[in-house]
Amino acid sequence: MRTLRISNRAKNTPSSPIRKLSPYAQASQAQGVIVHRLNIGQPDVPTPKEFFEGIALFKEPVVAYDLSQGSSKLRTSWISYFKRVLEIDLTQDSMLITTGASEALTFSFMTLCDPGDEVIIFDPTYANFIGFAAIAGVSLVPVRCELSENFALPSADTIEQHFSNRTRAILLCNPNNPTGTIYSEKEVKQLLDLCEENNIFLVVDETYREIVFDNLKPFSVLHIARGNPRVIVVDSLSKRFSICGARLGSIITANSDVYGAILNIAQARLAAPTIEQFAAAHMIDLLGKEHLNQTVKIYQLRRDTLFLNLKAIKGVQLESPSGAFYTVVRLPVADAELFCRYLLEEFRLNNETVFLAPARGFFLEQGRGAQEVRIAFVLNNPELERCCELLESALRQWNFASKSSFN
Amino acid sequence: MRTLRISNRAKNTPSSPIRKLSPYAQASQAQGVIVHRLNIGQPDVPTPKEFFEGIALFKEPVVAYDLSQGSSKLRTSWISYFKRVLEIDLTQDSMLITTGASEALTFSFMTLCDPGDEVIIFDPTYANFIGFAAIAGVSLVPVRCELSENFALPSADTIEQHFSNRTRAILLCNPNNPTGTIYSEKEVKQLLDLCEENNIFLVVDETYREIVFDNLKPFSVLHIARGNPRVIVVDSLSKRFSICGARLGSIITANSDVYGAILNIAQARLAAPTIEQFAAAHMIDLLGKEHLNQTVKIYQLRRDTLFLNLKAIKGVQLESPSGAFYTVVRLPVADAELFCRYLLEEFRLNNETVFLAPARGFFLEQGRGAQEVRIAFVLNNPELERCCELLESALRQWNFASKSSFN
Repeated sequence: MRTLRISNRAKNTPSSPIRKLSPYAQASQAQGVIVHRLNIGQPDVPTPKEFFEGIALFKEPVVAYDLSQGSSKLRTSWISYFKRVLEIDLTQDSMLITTGASEALTFSFMTLCDPGDEVIIFDPTYANFIGFAAIAGVSLVPVRCELSENFALPSADTIEQHFSNRTRAILLCNPNNPTGTIYSEKEVKQLLDLCEENNIFLVVDETYREIVFDNLKPFSVLHIARGNPRVIVVDSLSKRFSICGARLGSIITANSDVYGAILNIAQARLAAPTIEQFAAAHMIDLLGKEHLNQTVKIYQLRRDTLFLNLKAIKGVQLESPSGAFYTVVRLPVADAELFCRYLLEEFRLNNETVFLAPARGFFLEQGRGAQEVRIAFVLNNPELERCCELLESALRQWNFASKSSFN
Repeated sequence: MRTLRISNRAKNTPSSPIRKLSPYAQASQAQGVIVHRLNIGQPDVPTPKEFFEGIALFKEPVVAYDLSQGSSKLRTSWISYFKRVLEIDLTQDSMLITTGASEALTFSFMTLCDPGDEVIIFDPTYANFIGFAAIAGVSLVPVRCELSENFALPSADTIEQHFSNRTRAILLCNPNNPTGTIYSEKEVKQLLDLCEENNIFLVVDETYREIVFDNLKPFSVLHIARGNPRVIVVDSLSKRFSICGARLGSIITANSDVYGAILNIAQARLAAPTIEQFAAAHMIDLLGKEHLNQTVKIYQLRRDTLFLNLKAIKGVQLESPSGAFYTVVRLPVADAELFCRYLLEEFRLNNETVFLAPARGFFLEQGRGAQEVRIAFVLNNPELERCCELLESALRQWNFASKSSFN
């Protein structure tokens, strides 16, 4: 039989750096090894009981399609959350519910870009942006951010140097995955000005908006640009409410052309899951700032624990993240991916090991990220401390082995 | 402000012919009009209690992401369903769970085609195929099927005349939405041979596989081509279990290159909904042929009722559908879309009206489908009878008004 060819875009879609080592983790677990997972943004924080109450309250006889733009009930609740928690006034017809922020980002790429068009991102970036762009045929153009500067944005001039006549948008994740960096109102305003001057869109993924530390207040681009037709916000309930598996995100835009185009795409895929939307609406109505404060407190303590314990490991470099629950850490190893595989395949301390995400897949620029890993602080404090012990021990053994091999 | 341009692909994504008239229906309902909905494949058949039991049995403290390829539990259950109900042996690693068949179809287009590549479809076709293709930049090439022939496939020669060097796949929906036509084992074998000869893929959407009438047995392309690397089956739990809103579909392929590429795309979007997967697995394990027989019986009775009552209306042309729960009907009107709008906006009988989907959006070939509508027999028999009464009355008034306007 002649070879059946798959598409180039499929060939160019990278496997997730977050999940690509999973088979090694599964194999170790099958052998009885305890694998602490800091590779994926899957918190251990319990889902609020109000979500499960909502699930139990669903009493329709038929689990029917909901509206393509999302259930009216969930949009109403989510809009009122914006008012209550963020003091932002939105209308229901500016919001479209998606199957996770993932779908919202894919829809945004599809709507703003034709194949070959360009979107500016800040490097390192959320690895799945690379996957969505590959599927959509969008060229991501990386603007370099440095660990030594806590991944702050470069100057407007530097950013503008990356524009071409195919640039269609700037995409920002704020607070940032994978770095935990927060971009200030001033920085976001600067990006918005750049977008105005160059007549392009600003897409802001605010999945982690409320998870900000050190008494910072949650900041949305909608605080300064509500009603601006070039602004698209991608939102998600996954992280702040610990319902990743519910797959509920949204797109918010005041641009009726964009909304209409996204709705057409959304109609083709019919609707987001019905029961999950119903339950989430119930939950949002009952939870407010207090729940968020508790959530932030949990992650801030974890951030503190992780930062202190990582800083104490010889040769490890990192900055303290200000939001989200990730940090990019430089390890004293030449190839962090090999080291992560070693952690899963060989290293054991008291039959335990730790699963980290090699950061190379989060860097678009070739050659960067070889020494870095992304760590998600999604486990409790004692477990995080233990992970740091494991990491320290593994680094010692790895570097000892590496040096030995040169002798 | 200068105009912000959206992408050409977004502009080319048609609004759903199934949903585009929804605002008129909503407006009428808001005025208290009873709107019988035959426009959308949303059955009124109750969701099995076993699905809700499954929902209630979910006791994890965190609604976490499941595997990108779908939960192991759901794949195990679905695979065992194939064995139990269809006598087809599959392995878990040939199945990937998707967020509805919609996502499965999008993933298939993305994986098999680069922008500009061509996929053969049979016209009329499921309208959302047109949407998925527009998003993916795929050119659908329509092969004409005729109402007068109950939309049977044309000869292999005729089909082959539509091939070009960019043809990547044939896409078949069997049983067919929107026509209710079933393609026999012989016809499917013929398509498979064409695919072999031309070294392309055969994608079969088997969403309605079990809903077949007149004692026909459910037939899958996997009955004749299990293990064939050019075959991709798209499956769905939505219709046969009346859980459209759960958004659970799957892709089945024995081609490990295709599977691997789809898994990469699937990893970028993380996972399908967790609780729904858990509940569906529970349901599938408890339901078998008896449940399916009951479901088929319901739709067959509806098919009989609808066919008899529509046939009795003067000027209406249709063939009896053999499967799924749709039929394409030619009405004695010049413009079926205008007539459907009239039904929603103006026509009332005892304060009731009926919502039909204009069929033009199901025809890829320009100019076809102007007089046709797609009718989904998703309501109970008395309501279907009433719908036919309403349609007959509306046709009479519409044609009287049309004739009057010429005088």
